[in-house]
Amino acid sequence: MTLLTTHKLFNGEQRRYRHYSHYNQCDMTFSVYLPSRALQGYRLPVLYCLGGLTCTDENFSVKSGAQRFAAEWGIVLVMPDTSPRGTDVADADVYNLGQGAGFYLNATRQPWAQHYQMYDYVVTELPELIEKHFSVNEQRSLCGHSMGGHGALMIALKNPQRYVAVSAFAPIAHPVAGAWGQTAFSTYLGANQQDWAAYDSTELISRYPFSLPVLIDQGSVDEYYPEQLNPQDFVQAAKAKAKGINIRYQLRENYDHSYYFVSTFIESHISFHAEAFGL
Amino acid sequence: MTLLTTHKLFNGEQRRYRHYSHYNQCDMTFSVYLPSRALQGYRLPVLYCLGGLTCTDENFSVKSGAQRFAAEWGIVLVMPDTSPRGTDVADADVYNLGQGAGFYLNATRQPWAQHYQMYDYVVTELPELIEKHFSVNEQRSLCGHSMGGHGALMIALKNPQRYVAVSAFAPIAHPVAGAWGQTAFSTYLGANQQDWAAYDSTELISRYPFSLPVLIDQGSVDEYYPEQLNPQDFVQAAKAKAKGINIRYQLRENYDHSYYFVSTFIESHISFHAEAFGL
Repeated sequence: MTLLTTHKLFNGEQRRYRHYSHYNQCDMTFSVYLPSRALQGYRLPVLYCLGGLTCTDENFSVKSGAQRFAAEWGIVLVMPDTSPRGTDVADADVYNLGQGAGFYLNATRQPWAQHYQMYDYVVTELPELIEKHFSVNEQRSLCGHSMGGHGALMIALKNPQRYVAVSAFAPIAHPVAGAWGQTAFSTYLGANQQDWAAYDSTELISRYPFSLPVLIDQGSVDEYYPEQLNPQDFVQAAKAKAKGINIRYQLRENYDHSYYFVSTFIESHISFHAEAFGL
Repeated sequence: MTLLTTHKLFNGEQRRYRHYSHYNQCDMTFSVYLPSRALQGYRLPVLYCLGGLTCTDENFSVKSGAQRFAAEWGIVLVMPDTSPRGTDVADADVYNLGQGAGFYLNATRQPWAQHYQMYDYVVTELPELIEKHFSVNEQRSLCGHSMGGHGALMIALKNPQRYVAVSAFAPIAHPVAGAWGQTAFSTYLGANQQDWAAYDSTELISRYPFSLPVLIDQGSVDEYYPEQLNPQDFVQAAKAKAKGINIRYQLRENYDHSYYFVSTFIESHISFHAEAFGL
């Protein structure tokens, strides 16, 4: 693991690392925010923050403003990249496929399958690395924006024993119902729609028990809200199928899809995770 | 004035505009943050936020986190660009001259003098535009980062009647003593060092009365601190020459020159301006 950059931030440190991923078969970059208490050796819980289409680990790091509140609560933030990258890694000429658009799944179709194993990377490989190298405990939670909101919800739904809570900003919450999700799933997974359902949060919440606390914020004037995101489908399925689920869904009047929206509500998301961590 | 983008942010609006500048003889872009109270018609004070080398109006807008606190206090933020821009505007092949590096002065040497009139733009033309089009009062203050810290201090020192306070992050506080300032001043103003002194904050504070409150933060591991910035020269001159000046200078251990440093201390800067505005 190679340290690329480090910046002091709210008494803690914002660092960026590169390491070789055995799942993705390429070098990966991630960012981590370590509050001062982690630097002092206290073992803190970890919030994984998953980015959206076209993003790297840096968008959330630079634009969300999350570190101010992670510092106050004592939460380590981990910002993975959104796909494998490199000249040897398959790519596409559109922003919603290929590098920057891994969709947090394990691709099964070539040429994607060789490197695009983001599900295993985020669920297994990266947490092992984080838990080996940093002063963290075994409490984990997930948040994400847009495609990263899809990743956060989907990963929590498939691994409720590994996480304590999940939150999302404008998530692609029903990918099989929108063009982004359909394009990505058909490209990475093939034509069999049963394979798609395994990565669709609305399908998953309809089929499997889930009781972790969920927080979702959605901007009302988000241009992707009606066609690509469909968080209301997820919320409806959750309320119908997951009895007693603790889900808070908030439609935010006149907010859009940008990080300005994320930064406005990040404090409430970090507080939500702090409560789930028992802080 | 053309509205380019608008985003709801902390109940207010982050907007970006383009307009023709008569001083700079080209189109200029700026960003403005309007707290909800300004949108409701209350006339609020204005903090001008000046960017550093290579920046546009967007760096401070996206990375500083200032809007959270501007919203709470009810302060309009204005983020100007750092130079004139365009294919017809003189430029240089280095990051510290030309477009993105206007140094907030009125250039007197060609080819720069034709468009590089950033001093008049920031002091006169932009405030006239802001005060005509937005719900603001006549209270103004200045803050800036690096080259923008130079701009903020220098403009306040030359126009103490127009502003109520000034703050700076890692300012180029003694430009005639460092290579960045020397290169810019000799290029834009020529070889006569008396002309340079008119834009050098340390020279200005030594010569002219000044009693506005000043807040400066400087990171101790900032790579530009010892050679390019020299805030300690300014502080020393201020304490020697400006009796009773209200200056707070804080060396921040292990912080660097980045916006991570700015975002860590932005809350205290906004509070400082709020106090000066009497909020």
